[in-house]
Amino acid sequence: MRVEIWSDIACPWCYVGKARFERALADFPHRDAVEVVHRSFELDPHRAKGDTAPVLAMLTKKYGMTEAQAQAAEDGVGAQANAEGLAYRTRGRDHGNTFDMHRLLHFAKERGADRQDALIAALYRANFAEEASVFDDEERLVALAAEAGLDPDAARAVLADPAAYADDVRADEREAAALGANGVPFFVLDRSFGLSGAQPVEVFQQALTRAWESRAPLTVLADGADGTGADACGPDGCAVPGA
Amino acid sequence: MRVEIWSDIACPWCYVGKARFERALADFPHRDAVEVVHRSFELDPHRAKGDTAPVLAMLTKKYGMTEAQAQAAEDGVGAQANAEGLAYRTRGRDHGNTFDMHRLLHFAKERGADRQDALIAALYRANFAEEASVFDDEERLVALAAEAGLDPDAARAVLADPAAYADDVRADEREAAALGANGVPFFVLDRSFGLSGAQPVEVFQQALTRAWESRAPLTVLADGADGTGADACGPDGCAVPGA
Repeated sequence: MRVEIWSDIACPWCYVGKARFERALADFPHRDAVEVVHRSFELDPHRAKGDTAPVLAMLTKKYGMTEAQAQAAEDGVGAQANAEGLAYRTRGRDHGNTFDMHRLLHFAKERGADRQDALIAALYRANFAEEASVFDDEERLVALAAEAGLDPDAARAVLADPAAYADDVRADEREAAALGANGVPFFVLDRSFGLSGAQPVEVFQQALTRAWESRAPLTVLADGADGTGADACGPDGCAVPGA
Repeated sequence: MRVEIWSDIACPWCYVGKARFERALADFPHRDAVEVVHRSFELDPHRAKGDTAPVLAMLTKKYGMTEAQAQAAEDGVGAQANAEGLAYRTRGRDHGNTFDMHRLLHFAKERGADRQDALIAALYRANFAEEASVFDDEERLVALAAEAGLDPDAARAVLADPAAYADDVRADEREAAALGANGVPFFVLDRSFGLSGAQPVEVFQQALTRAWESRAPLTVLADGADGTGADACGPDGCAVPGA
């Protein structure tokens, strides 16, 4: 079974939702048969690279909150993150463009699903829990990539070339739109079931169970091993011309 | 869309079938949305490591052919391979245990789908077209891994440890059995459609089209962005406690 997760590094509910999903998966009896793939989604695709601002300023502007209300909101998200065992820095975080981080996540994916998973965890932690900003600091991203087991020089080269993996990011975003995503985190199970949001662990458990139980037998379109079709190799050997 | 291909390096129809599938895919209008994953299948899982014999001897024993008939059979497969533009050495090939090659393919997969694809192509070519045997020669496999962009020392370490990626190979084989594979190459499209054998290009084209047209909308299990559910971030911003 395959679970695809569309998310953005700048999305606190993606950070929290990933932890909740992982708790559900850890208890899922068929967890060893579940493959997790991370996909890109930018919450703010029109935000220019370099347009970085404090989260509180973004919140007051977007929701018309006072600064105290915005701070209380950050504290509330932080409390939910902490409840999942996640560190969350509620003071002085930045918000900005995440396109380069998504490009780097696709580079990591090409080096293996485990590296991509390590990198997304490192980026979340850096953005939500650490002091140094992940925006507008390529060497910070290179260090996080190295921490995820990637070659720092190769990561630096990816960041230096704005075209590198850009199409992969956009392809993920087009796919999210085609699948009807209107928010992240967006979870898709076996391309059959979708759910969005940092759902409670039980909701993820139910979704995993439902998707698992819905697996249907394959429709056989052509069987090369039935003796009538094309050539195949089976337990009794290969179709052999003249045999 | 995802296409999984179960195959064995020792399976000539897998070598031919892969080329035919790739021709179909190259002409498929949605090819950029198709992800190909290689999975392990051993035709002869009980064959001991080191039990390597000439293909002709295997054919005469298995099918009760004369040596001339076996040679004609190899010539016949070679002609079909050549028709796909593939080199095929019809004289003096070996047959043996492929478990280590499958372990190496899983190591390659962890380093990225492109590396796995490069390695399977290198292994096929080495086994079917080149003089040096791919059986019982670990340094030959290391050289092929290096050719596929993998670190030779890491590949050597994988080969030296019989447990490395062994579970991944067996998991693929269990999955093939669960999906009803009775021969390879075995192609599974979006876990909905299956076909086996080195089918003609048109059959692969029809299968790709049918699987593409059968994609159904997701069943939404929980929508965090509908305002009633869990917390999510959408184009209008994130659910904010207190907003």
